[in-house]
Amino acid sequence: MNEKKLKSLRKEIDLIDKKLLKVIIKRSSIVKKIGQLKDLSKGVVDKKRENEVLNKLIKFHKGEYSKGSIIRLWREIFYSSAQLQLKKQNTLIPKRGVESIKVYKGGTAKIAGKENIIKLSSNESPFGPSKKAIEAYTRTATTLSRYPELTADSLELSISKKFKINKDQIICGTGSDEVLIFTALAFCSPGDEIIHAIHGFEMYPIITKYAGAESVLASEKDFKISIKSILENIRSSTKIIFIANPNNPTGTYLNKKELFSLIKKVPKNIVVVIDTAYAEFADAQDYDYGFNLVDNFENVLITRTFSKAYSLAGIRLGWGYGSKKLINILKRLRPPFNITPGAIAAGIEALKDKEHLQNVIVHNKKVKGWFISELNNIGLKAYDTQTNFVFVIVPEKNNLNALKVNEFLLSNGIAVRYLESYGLKNAIRITLGTKEELNKTLSTIKKLYKKND
Amino acid sequence: MNEKKLKSLRKEIDLIDKKLLKVIIKRSSIVKKIGQLKDLSKGVVDKKRENEVLNKLIKFHKGEYSKGSIIRLWREIFYSSAQLQLKKQNTLIPKRGVESIKVYKGGTAKIAGKENIIKLSSNESPFGPSKKAIEAYTRTATTLSRYPELTADSLELSISKKFKINKDQIICGTGSDEVLIFTALAFCSPGDEIIHAIHGFEMYPIITKYAGAESVLASEKDFKISIKSILENIRSSTKIIFIANPNNPTGTYLNKKELFSLIKKVPKNIVVVIDTAYAEFADAQDYDYGFNLVDNFENVLITRTFSKAYSLAGIRLGWGYGSKKLINILKRLRPPFNITPGAIAAGIEALKDKEHLQNVIVHNKKVKGWFISELNNIGLKAYDTQTNFVFVIVPEKNNLNALKVNEFLLSNGIAVRYLESYGLKNAIRITLGTKEELNKTLSTIKKLYKKND
Repeated sequence: MNEKKLKSLRKEIDLIDKKLLKVIIKRSSIVKKIGQLKDLSKGVVDKKRENEVLNKLIKFHKGEYSKGSIIRLWREIFYSSAQLQLKKQNTLIPKRGVESIKVYKGGTAKIAGKENIIKLSSNESPFGPSKKAIEAYTRTATTLSRYPELTADSLELSISKKFKINKDQIICGTGSDEVLIFTALAFCSPGDEIIHAIHGFEMYPIITKYAGAESVLASEKDFKISIKSILENIRSSTKIIFIANPNNPTGTYLNKKELFSLIKKVPKNIVVVIDTAYAEFADAQDYDYGFNLVDNFENVLITRTFSKAYSLAGIRLGWGYGSKKLINILKRLRPPFNITPGAIAAGIEALKDKEHLQNVIVHNKKVKGWFISELNNIGLKAYDTQTNFVFVIVPEKNNLNALKVNEFLLSNGIAVRYLESYGLKNAIRITLGTKEELNKTLSTIKKLYKKND
Repeated sequence: MNEKKLKSLRKEIDLIDKKLLKVIIKRSSIVKKIGQLKDLSKGVVDKKRENEVLNKLIKFHKGEYSKGSIIRLWREIFYSSAQLQLKKQNTLIPKRGVESIKVYKGGTAKIAGKENIIKLSSNESPFGPSKKAIEAYTRTATTLSRYPELTADSLELSISKKFKINKDQIICGTGSDEVLIFTALAFCSPGDEIIHAIHGFEMYPIITKYAGAESVLASEKDFKISIKSILENIRSSTKIIFIANPNNPTGTYLNKKELFSLIKKVPKNIVVVIDTAYAEFADAQDYDYGFNLVDNFENVLITRTFSKAYSLAGIRLGWGYGSKKLINILKRLRPPFNITPGAIAAGIEALKDKEHLQNVIVHNKKVKGWFISELNNIGLKAYDTQTNFVFVIVPEKNNLNALKVNEFLLSNGIAVRYLESYGLKNAIRITLGTKEELNKTLSTIKKLYKKND
């Protein structure tokens, strides 16, 4: 009985599919005509028009398929339309989104003609790694003909003990970047959306495109991400929200209460990633240092890194903490042996070396207030920070601006981060290096301002 | 004039989209009815039915959109249908394909209760890494608070000099695995297809699913991939062909002529990846050792690794060589700093240490013929190999089979690779370790066969 009914329903599906295909074929012929009218040199994609079409469709959609699926279907149709207007075929074409990835630039690491530069461009630790971590890393050298542990099990165990959290809920990555990449790849199909701040970490839009997804930018108030804007931008194709907390490159943060109230309002099928790469440097009373959000929300992922306060950027090691359900999904995308033996060994020892970590944090706390006020005295606008860097707006005056400050510092062997690639042409970011490095930086900036006075 | 025409064509599109949406909504209501008839415990996805539908549609499709796009659209519809039948909502759902990834297991590295095991399960080098590589790796330990080179530039330069190939056409990855992953992510949207051998490297189907794509299995003849089968399986949604050459786990290979004749027939928009992880061990006259294919075909990617003959599995380092066009696409997906300073330093020195490499290769050549004939003398079927491992079929007799041989070896502290996870229940793969290790392995197998005689 059921079999017969199934057969007749499937026949109905077959007829509908035929009809669908016919309409799609018809659509493609009109798209072709439109292509002939367009000036191809200006590009064929009209994002505004696409969004209008999508919004209308979602409004009109009342069926059983999810709205997210409708968006993905039409984005595939848009993509196919663009391809056909560009007349590309029989040649290598990457998947949607890949062609428009802006390759990550990173902080300046070399200055032509200069040998011992002061590198304050990548928020690295100025004191070198923990000696114990160095020793542990060195010991792995003779074992390198063997593959590492498949899943960095011993390191996960160390992390779980150190932070008193559940081992099964930890995933390690080559830098927290890799954990973010797993998340995007696990949850986003092409056509889906990821929300992040307009001035968030430079990797967020790149990672979004790795997955073929689309960035949706949340606005900010005084360089702090707006919760209201995040919530307003959520729709059926939103899969992930990336929040750097504290934020890179602005040093701002959402406090415990703000985070909680945001996450409470986010639908449970959207992953909220709280990227706390700079957590160890935060000293605000109301900053959320813990992992409690994970206990309360299955859809929250908190990431941490060994690159900043633990002073081990070179081993490429970060980790994420989330619900078992979430972590088990991410683990499916973790390539085997992703963490090297040197990173496992150094990571375990760095976690034990409380003194080294403490020295790094104490130094940072010591210099940040002083450095910020010195910059402000010169006439720049340096913001308060919860990190190991300072965000600085350079007012346009006396023929000076952020670009010129950056160039003058470079010509004096000092590399800071000019934030043009973050869409902030009037700002620089300066890592809190040693007192000596910061003094040199201040005197160099002063020299420039005196010259232009 | 054009503007007016454009406007009217867009109105037509809007009407068609409305019609499309209506048909899709209708389709979803029938899918819902079908779902109510299905026994959900058996799963809702009927791959056979899906393929029938797809094949019919492609045949019928005559429009301007690509056939690949039609396949992706319908696969999205199938996915949406399955989701709706499973009634999943407001909970974390990974993208298509992720839930069905079989996590990579790797070779046995530990045996409970045994300390000094003989590890012949992962095709590692039994002699340890080059001393020069060890020294170079060790020297990086004190620099680990800094990020590595953004794109492993100095290593790319060394590779280009060593192999006399163009630096711009090289991309380095954390193991050649990562280069394969870049390729899948760069070219495949969910719903696209990747062709690989039915008994190819275990990572191929996993990497396929990282991209949400579908594996299409090429058949083999006597464990060698069939060119005819590859060509027959190509269709409009095929994006990549993975060929391990020599193949893991079977040790077989396609010769120069076969490779060339295959690639000539593959459409230029499909990437052919020739994964030559074991190339250094190949000694067949007609094996293709070079990189000429890349000069002739824009769509060919050749990958290599430091994990096998270079004896550096622990640094996680591999690379790919392809046309500038292909490599530039892959570079968009390379995360910054993906190669650690230790890997860069050790890799550069390993390339220089010709003697170490030579020793590894000469040893392998020396033992392989002998080991294969010894295994055959016992009554197993060991195949000729172009690699540093031997593929062995264990005939079912005297109550013995591959599982039992594997277990007996394990209980004697010897780890080989039982190939069940490769779909080969009657086979094992044994790495060509030291003479001593191989002798111990032979005598242990002999003991088992004597016992069961």
